[in-house]
Amino acid sequence: MTILDVIAAKRDGHKHTKPELDWLARAAARGEIADYQIAAWLMAAYIHPLDPEETAWLTLAMADSGERLDLTGLPKPWVDKHSTGGVGDKTSIVLLPLLAACGLTVIKMSGRGLGITGGTVDKLESVPGFRMDLPPAELKAQATRIGLAISGQTPNLAPADKVFYGLRDATATVGSIPLIVSSILSKKIAGGAETVVLDVKAGSGAFMKTLDAARELAAALAATAKLAGLNARLAISDMDQPLGRTVGNALEVGEAGMVLTGNEPSRFCELCVDLAGLTLAAAGETWDLDTGRRKAREALASGRALQKAEAWFEAQGGDPAVLVRPDKLPRAPVQRYVLCGTEGWMGSIDAETVGQIVVDLGGGRTRKEDTIDPAVGVEVHREIGMRVTADGPAFTVHARDESDAEAAAERLSRCFRISGDPVDLVPPLIETL
Amino acid sequence: MTILDVIAAKRDGHKHTKPELDWLARAAARGEIADYQIAAWLMAAYIHPLDPEETAWLTLAMADSGERLDLTGLPKPWVDKHSTGGVGDKTSIVLLPLLAACGLTVIKMSGRGLGITGGTVDKLESVPGFRMDLPPAELKAQATRIGLAISGQTPNLAPADKVFYGLRDATATVGSIPLIVSSILSKKIAGGAETVVLDVKAGSGAFMKTLDAARELAAALAATAKLAGLNARLAISDMDQPLGRTVGNALEVGEAGMVLTGNEPSRFCELCVDLAGLTLAAAGETWDLDTGRRKAREALASGRALQKAEAWFEAQGGDPAVLVRPDKLPRAPVQRYVLCGTEGWMGSIDAETVGQIVVDLGGGRTRKEDTIDPAVGVEVHREIGMRVTADGPAFTVHARDESDAEAAAERLSRCFRISGDPVDLVPPLIETL
Repeated sequence: MTILDVIAAKRDGHKHTKPELDWLARAAARGEIADYQIAAWLMAAYIHPLDPEETAWLTLAMADSGERLDLTGLPKPWVDKHSTGGVGDKTSIVLLPLLAACGLTVIKMSGRGLGITGGTVDKLESVPGFRMDLPPAELKAQATRIGLAISGQTPNLAPADKVFYGLRDATATVGSIPLIVSSILSKKIAGGAETVVLDVKAGSGAFMKTLDAARELAAALAATAKLAGLNARLAISDMDQPLGRTVGNALEVGEAGMVLTGNEPSRFCELCVDLAGLTLAAAGETWDLDTGRRKAREALASGRALQKAEAWFEAQGGDPAVLVRPDKLPRAPVQRYVLCGTEGWMGSIDAETVGQIVVDLGGGRTRKEDTIDPAVGVEVHREIGMRVTADGPAFTVHARDESDAEAAAERLSRCFRISGDPVDLVPPLIETL
Repeated sequence: MTILDVIAAKRDGHKHTKPELDWLARAAARGEIADYQIAAWLMAAYIHPLDPEETAWLTLAMADSGERLDLTGLPKPWVDKHSTGGVGDKTSIVLLPLLAACGLTVIKMSGRGLGITGGTVDKLESVPGFRMDLPPAELKAQATRIGLAISGQTPNLAPADKVFYGLRDATATVGSIPLIVSSILSKKIAGGAETVVLDVKAGSGAFMKTLDAARELAAALAATAKLAGLNARLAISDMDQPLGRTVGNALEVGEAGMVLTGNEPSRFCELCVDLAGLTLAAAGETWDLDTGRRKAREALASGRALQKAEAWFEAQGGDPAVLVRPDKLPRAPVQRYVLCGTEGWMGSIDAETVGQIVVDLGGGRTRKEDTIDPAVGVEVHREIGMRVTADGPAFTVHARDESDAEAAAERLSRCFRISGDPVDLVPPLIETL
């Protein structure tokens, strides 16, 4: 087999064989294929999309292209979660300790953010001292001790995905559903999880801008996971407004802490409870989603989730006090309010623009090599459907200086709409499959 | 404009704008686009082929991506020829001096061979001392003096083509007709020619294996040349048997010399006369093809073509004596006959296999960096339709040693078929447009 045979097969729209995809993933991981040859294959696979069986083969081949984390010895069930990313999506920081508090073993590999969707690695690194570089042995030891561990991706886990992922961005092949699916699932499988909850975000603040696109991705994730032997449950959740009341790394950690204290029954908290319930049901710990939700709410209300989060932060070197004392997190020097300006109901908030404003404040990356400022960001004081007054705050900008704050405030003042008539609240979870 | 916009446009099957293709060719030539991004675009353009207008825009953009040879001051008409390459295709060595002897100014940029189709550069370099690295000023000076000059490609001529060409081979995108067309024509335009004769080869010994495929390429070349303002005439010629009676670099120079002496009225000579006639008619020097053919035959018979070839070899440092004394060319140490074995008529000769045998003898390249042996090759003693006797020779192998000769002879003995019934001779020129 040669790379030219593999490229030509997909170029001509033929179905790949399993040995072809095994060979491709292994050779890519070993650096045996030139970048331009992988790029040609990626474009062919974008235009002639892999079918579900090919996608499953590629997923398994990518998972096997490096080491697989062996969780043998850890208490079952082993679970993981993944979100396709959204503006203000800090769900993992709440969900992981919440699931561990409910008795599950959670090991998560997480990524850095690019563009408007932040990454959990960046958020947690805004906590002074938090270590995201745990090697596999330490990950396992910590999960044995407290049921929970997180790490940035290690180079040996699904290395073929790293090669493909790095090229997709630069070759306009990011949007291929089978390539997205194999990238997500290969890492979950290599990470050792048995049960995975996948949160597909839909809306202007997400990669999938429409509900139809999100449904297509969710269906493909479900189909491929099944063919690849992974127990996956899918959630589609709303991202047509920022998730929760903060966007920006340290601000989001502070908000996650508030939710973990059980004192913020917000729309974001509701999504965390939904996803926890779904995970508990998927892992066979509860009969159904509603029982799972109830169990999750109890873990929050009883303080067990917060205790688990404190143990987690402590174990990974971060100061657990930040969970209840957000003032101990990095704070930007300049704050500025944006007022609603009109009385009525919050009608819409352009999540994509809010995300872009936070990137431009320095809180996100445009290119992989950019460094980010953990302190900057935007507080979102009103969700869609909430009552607003003319002189009530819509947003608070957290910026490095007056001129950044001014520019952000000006843009924010144009990215929401107030309705004179009542507007429905939008539940965060749209559907599950 | 960014490369991602350009890739995405073709990925989605949209038509490129002229500014997009101008930008692409210029940025590629300057090394401003990563190889993997060009590769992704090439694959998108393979699957969603450029239309005639896009192909013409790309052709002109590639021609303008570097220097253009300015032939101002040279006697008109300025002509060039190009062949898509075939086994035993030494046409340029005869055609160029033949056209110059008929009063045309011929400047040709030529390439090296890869695979079974040899390159004119390699053939002429088998002549001791022949220089293929003339800089533009020297090319022009020589053409002014004797009406004729040839050079290997210079780095500044159509540099975008060099970038695309180098990647097409490694990304399974060689077969795209619009990419082939723009590659061929951009170099002709950058080389300054006004009238070009393009010889598209069809058959097992050519890149286009069928007549239909050759017709498709010829039609695309004609259409694009017209849109790009180049006066092109197309020939489709037969390559289902080796062209002429030699395959191998020095052997082919010897054969070209024999044709130039006017003493070998062979099928190969017939093609040279056809192409010369076509060029003369296309350049407006004769009323029609037949008058052009007659003029070409006179130039051969009168010795003027040979004199022009001798002046040409002399001017570029090669020994002109080799044209009439092929024994002065490099000669392989071992010769071996392959007999016909049966009485009858030559029914078929597998040109592709003959070409591959010569490559394997050391006379061609499998990879660009291979060095070649000018002396090895195969003589083809009988063309399709010729009468053969059982103990008459079908081929002579010229090899570096006995074992190579033995292996080649064995393969040659299986690559032709003798018919018991008369077989028609096959004229070399199939059609023109």
